[in-house]
Amino acid sequence: MPRIDLDAIPAVNTTGYPAPFAADVAGRWYRRLAPTAGLTDFGASHVVLKPGAWSAQRHWHEDEDELVVMISGEAVLVDDSGETPLRPGDVAAFPKNDGNGHCIRNDSDADCMFVAIGQATTRMCHYPDIDMVWSGDAGRYLHRDGTPY
Amino acid sequence: MPRIDLDAIPAVNTTGYPAPFAADVAGRWYRRLAPTAGLTDFGASHVVLKPGAWSAQRHWHEDEDELVVMISGEAVLVDDSGETPLRPGDVAAFPKNDGNGHCIRNDSDADCMFVAIGQATTRMCHYPDIDMVWSGDAGRYLHRDGTPY
Repeated sequence: MPRIDLDAIPAVNTTGYPAPFAADVAGRWYRRLAPTAGLTDFGASHVVLKPGAWSAQRHWHEDEDELVVMISGEAVLVDDSGETPLRPGDVAAFPKNDGNGHCIRNDSDADCMFVAIGQATTRMCHYPDIDMVWSGDAGRYLHRDGTPY
Repeated sequence: MPRIDLDAIPAVNTTGYPAPFAADVAGRWYRRLAPTAGLTDFGASHVVLKPGAWSAQRHWHEDEDELVVMISGEAVLVDDSGETPLRPGDVAAFPKNDGNGHCIRNDSDADCMFVAIGQATTRMCHYPDIDMVWSGDAGRYLHRDGTPY
């Protein structure tokens, strides 16, 4: 059945972020769709942000395009250009290696929901607001000086 | 600006389908998002189906995963398992080479809208209900016996 039974996929709020950066995404509940659906060309996650939750620390990938399709609720897209509202039907794109750190924040009093498309893995991700990078080669988060968390 | 200005992208209803198969998709108005947004990892289209329109002839790809995120309106997903309603927030996945021909039909009296993710190109696409295949090698639609349209 091509229509995905979202209720059959457990939603998780796990993160590999070290403290204190993990707290901002504690209200991010996501379902990985590609493994269940049998997709391998790209990754996809169904995401619910509880009020106050962030999709991620503000970041940009060296090697991964991302696309977000807003389904319900209201969110704020934060990037170098400032804050932009995202409403149902809005689509946002984040080309790899553009150096424009982005994240989506739920500043509203209700859940918001979106689907995010990207890759299953990423080699290098930068977090311009904090002392952190993701290194796929190291398989972990590092300080900017290369020392591990 | 990561939020895509959809109004700035012209919607088109062009198709390479030969007659009479083109008529079913005449009410499919789409915007190619990836070229404008600078994405290369995958393709994405924002699609409006007018009442009566089909997303495509029922098809499956040998070499292209597809994902659909419903934004607004109501549609019917048609595949080998029958007809399944699609409503805002529903997500449907079509793994490559599954042999399950699928399309999305708007049987309602109002527009419906979705975003479809796939690849920019496909090598081989099968249309189980009609005498047609897409051959990327030939760069055109063929009869099943290999003769061109």
